[in-house]
Amino acid sequence: MRILSTELKDHIGGTVHIRGWLHKKRLLGGLTFINVRDRRGLVQVVLQNKDEVEKLRGLQIGTVLSVDGKAVEEPRAPGGVELHDATLNVLVPVTEEPPIEIDKPLSHKPENLDTLFEYRALGLRNLQETAIFKVQAAITKAARDYFYENDFTEIHTPKLLAAATEGGAEVFKIDYFGKEATLAQSPQFYKQIMVGIYERVFEIAPVYRAEPSATTRHMTEYTSIDAEMGFIDIKSLEDLLSGFLNYVNDYLWKHHESGLKLLRATKPELPKAIPAMSMAEIHERYSKETNQNTVGEKDLRPDEERWVCDYASKNLKSEAVFVTDWPAADMKFYHKAQKGQPELADRIDLLFRGVEIATGSMRENEYEVVMKQLREKAGGDPEDPGFKPLLTAMQAGMPPHGGFGMGLERLTEKFIGLNNVKEATLFPRDINRLSP
Amino acid sequence: MRILSTELKDHIGGTVHIRGWLHKKRLLGGLTFINVRDRRGLVQVVLQNKDEVEKLRGLQIGTVLSVDGKAVEEPRAPGGVELHDATLNVLVPVTEEPPIEIDKPLSHKPENLDTLFEYRALGLRNLQETAIFKVQAAITKAARDYFYENDFTEIHTPKLLAAATEGGAEVFKIDYFGKEATLAQSPQFYKQIMVGIYERVFEIAPVYRAEPSATTRHMTEYTSIDAEMGFIDIKSLEDLLSGFLNYVNDYLWKHHESGLKLLRATKPELPKAIPAMSMAEIHERYSKETNQNTVGEKDLRPDEERWVCDYASKNLKSEAVFVTDWPAADMKFYHKAQKGQPELADRIDLLFRGVEIATGSMRENEYEVVMKQLREKAGGDPEDPGFKPLLTAMQAGMPPHGGFGMGLERLTEKFIGLNNVKEATLFPRDINRLSP
Repeated sequence: MRILSTELKDHIGGTVHIRGWLHKKRLLGGLTFINVRDRRGLVQVVLQNKDEVEKLRGLQIGTVLSVDGKAVEEPRAPGGVELHDATLNVLVPVTEEPPIEIDKPLSHKPENLDTLFEYRALGLRNLQETAIFKVQAAITKAARDYFYENDFTEIHTPKLLAAATEGGAEVFKIDYFGKEATLAQSPQFYKQIMVGIYERVFEIAPVYRAEPSATTRHMTEYTSIDAEMGFIDIKSLEDLLSGFLNYVNDYLWKHHESGLKLLRATKPELPKAIPAMSMAEIHERYSKETNQNTVGEKDLRPDEERWVCDYASKNLKSEAVFVTDWPAADMKFYHKAQKGQPELADRIDLLFRGVEIATGSMRENEYEVVMKQLREKAGGDPEDPGFKPLLTAMQAGMPPHGGFGMGLERLTEKFIGLNNVKEATLFPRDINRLSP
Repeated sequence: MRILSTELKDHIGGTVHIRGWLHKKRLLGGLTFINVRDRRGLVQVVLQNKDEVEKLRGLQIGTVLSVDGKAVEEPRAPGGVELHDATLNVLVPVTEEPPIEIDKPLSHKPENLDTLFEYRALGLRNLQETAIFKVQAAITKAARDYFYENDFTEIHTPKLLAAATEGGAEVFKIDYFGKEATLAQSPQFYKQIMVGIYERVFEIAPVYRAEPSATTRHMTEYTSIDAEMGFIDIKSLEDLLSGFLNYVNDYLWKHHESGLKLLRATKPELPKAIPAMSMAEIHERYSKETNQNTVGEKDLRPDEERWVCDYASKNLKSEAVFVTDWPAADMKFYHKAQKGQPELADRIDLLFRGVEIATGSMRENEYEVVMKQLREKAGGDPEDPGFKPLLTAMQAGMPPHGGFGMGLERLTEKFIGLNNVKEATLFPRDINRLSP
C-alpha cells in the first residue's frame, strides 16, 4: 500500500512503499541521496546499493518512480523520516534534461517573470510555487466557509453577455453565431438580481477585462470573489468585509502556516473591526506629510494607497484600512449616493498592504432613481438587454443592498507578500500572454 | 432585531420584527392574510387592524416591508408560526403589477420555457425555482467537500486560450487585441498539467461550447465539475465517481430534503459501487430486447442510454451505471488505450437517470505515445501553443493519471428530475438566448 510523505512518521521502523517524482539527487559521503516528491511533500531516500543507484543512470528530475524502503527517524530529513535500504522501481523515465531547475526557488525578479510563466507547466513543481497555490486554494475554501456561515447562497451567473453593461472600453467581444456578444467584466447585475431571491449571494468565478497594458496589478482574466447582500447599510458592508478578511487570515495561519513560512510571509495585523478613513482625510494627511497636494482629487494615487496602509499599520494597528466617502462624481449608475450628502457615494474601498483589494458600495435600489442615474450617468437605454434584467428586478421590489468584488489573485499576492498579481496566478493572461 | 422566518418558532409568545418581500395577499373570513418572504422562507401574517390593511392599498407583490407582530403557534402556517397584531412598515413600495405571478409554481412545459427564462429575474423568486438553485448550491458544496476529503487541491485555470485544443468546430472566438483567442471548452490540458504538481486537482468553473442547436441537453455556457488524479488506474476512477455521486446524494437528502420534496424529487437508489456494463454488452442486450440492431456501433444512442439506466434500475438496484470498454476509434489523442486491447479506450462514462452525466478516462502519460497520437488522431502540431504546455508536462514526467468532467446543471437536473438542463441554470445561454 502506498504511503504518503506526511504519513511516514507513523511507520518508523517499518518497510514502506512510496510513489512520486524524482525531485533531487545528490552524492554525499559516498552515498546517493534522492528526494521523492508526492502530493504532500518530499521524502528523503538513501540509496546504499549500487544496483539501485544504477537504475537512475541517465534519468532526470521528474522521473516517476516508486520506492520500497525502511522508514528511519532522521531529524535532518524533510518530515523527520528517511528511507533506508531502498529499492527503486522506475515507472516513467524522464530522459530529456528539463529546461529549468525546480529544486531551488525560482526567480521572481521582474526581468525573470516571463521565463517563470513560459515554463509554468514545469516550474509549478517547485515547492515554493506549489505553496503559493496551496495558499490560494485555502483562501477560496476559507472565503466560501465564511459566506456559508453568514447564510450566503452560492450562485453561478453567465459570463457570456449580450452587451457590455459596466461601461468602459475594456470589454472582450465574441463572435456569437454571427452576432456580437461580450465577456462579463463582473457579475454585478446578476448578483444584484439574485439579492431579490436569496438576499445574500456569492460567486467565485472568472471575469474578463480587455486591459490594454501589462501591469503588476491587472490581468485580462482573473478570479473574482463577489458578494452581495440585502437589508443592510454601508456599516454592515464594512462589518462583512472586516469579518471576511479576518476569517481568511485566521484560517490561513491556522492551517497553512508551514507553507506561508516557506514563502516568508508574515501574518498581517488586523483588528476585528478594520479602521476607516474618509478620502478627504487621507488627502489632507498625505498632502501635509509628503508636501504633495492631492486635496480635492477624486481618487487615491497609488502612492497614497501605499502611504495610507503604512499610516494605518503604524498608527491604527491594522495592515488594512477602509477608504470611505468617495466623491459621487465618478459613481456608477447603480451606486447609491449618501443620504443627505448626494455629493458623496455610499462606497468603501478596502486597502490591504498597499493596494486596493476590494471595492464595495451600496446600490441604488429605488427603481425611479436608478432609471434616472442610468440615463444621466451612463447614457444608458433602459430597454438595452444588458440593463433590462436589473431594472426589472428593481421595479419588482429590491431592498437596500450592497456588496463587494475582490480579486482572488491580488488577495493571494498580498497575503503572501508577492509583488505582481501574476505571480499569484497559475497561468496568467495579459495583452502579451495567452499561453501556456 | 430582525428575526428570520425559520427562527420564529423560538420566539412564540414574543413580539418580533421581520423583513422581506410581500409574497402573497388574500382575504379570508374578513381578515387579510399576507405572506412575507425572506431568505429562509415564508412568514404568515394576519392583519387585523384596518389601518394596516390600508397601507398595502395599491401595492403589489414584491413590495419590501418590515412587520412587527406577536409570534403565535399556528400549525397551518409555514413553519408553524403566524404573526398577530401586526403593524407594517413599507420600505420599498412596488406599484407596477409584475408581468408574472410568482406565488404559484411556474410552468416548465417545453412551450413555456421561453417565458420562464425571459422573466427569470422575477420568476426565480418563486419558491420552487428558489429550491432548485438551493439544491444546486448544495451540490457544489458537497462536491467540493468530497474533493477536499480525498486530498484534492482546487485550481483556477484560464478560459482565454491561444488555440482551440480539444478539437471540433464548437469553439467561440474572441477578438484579443486584434489577435484571435478562443474560449476554453474544458480545463482538460491544464488539469492534466496540474496532476504533475498536486497529483489530485479539481475545478468547478464555466466552460464554453459554440453549440449551434438549441437542445434540452446542451448550452453554450455551463459549469463544469472537473477532477483529475495521478497514480491511478481506471478502477480507481470508477471508485472516485461512485464515491462522488453517493456523497452528493447523501448530502443533498440529509440537508435539503424539504426543498427536494417541494420539487417532488425522489432519492436515487445508488449502491456504494455503481455497476458497470461494457458498451458491447449494452448493444447486445438492447438489440435483443428492442429488436433494434446497435451491435458494433461506436456510441450509445440516446434511447439506449435511457434503456440501460432503466435496466440497471430494475436489475442492478442502481439508478446510475458505468459504460466501459469504449471503442478506441473515437478516442481523443490524450486518451489512453487499454493495455493489451488497443482497440478499446480506457474510458468510462457515467449514466444517471437516462443520460450521460460524466465522461472519464485514463490519459496517455507516455510522452512518445501522446506525441504519436497527437499527430495521428488530431493531426496536431506539437509546437502549437495550445498543445505545447501539455506535452512539456508529459516530457517532464507524468504518472498514470485520469479524470472526469461533469456538468453541474445536468447533475442538478437529474437529481431533481427536471427535463431540460436549462431549467437547472439561473440564466441559461444557447444559440437563441444571451439575455437576461
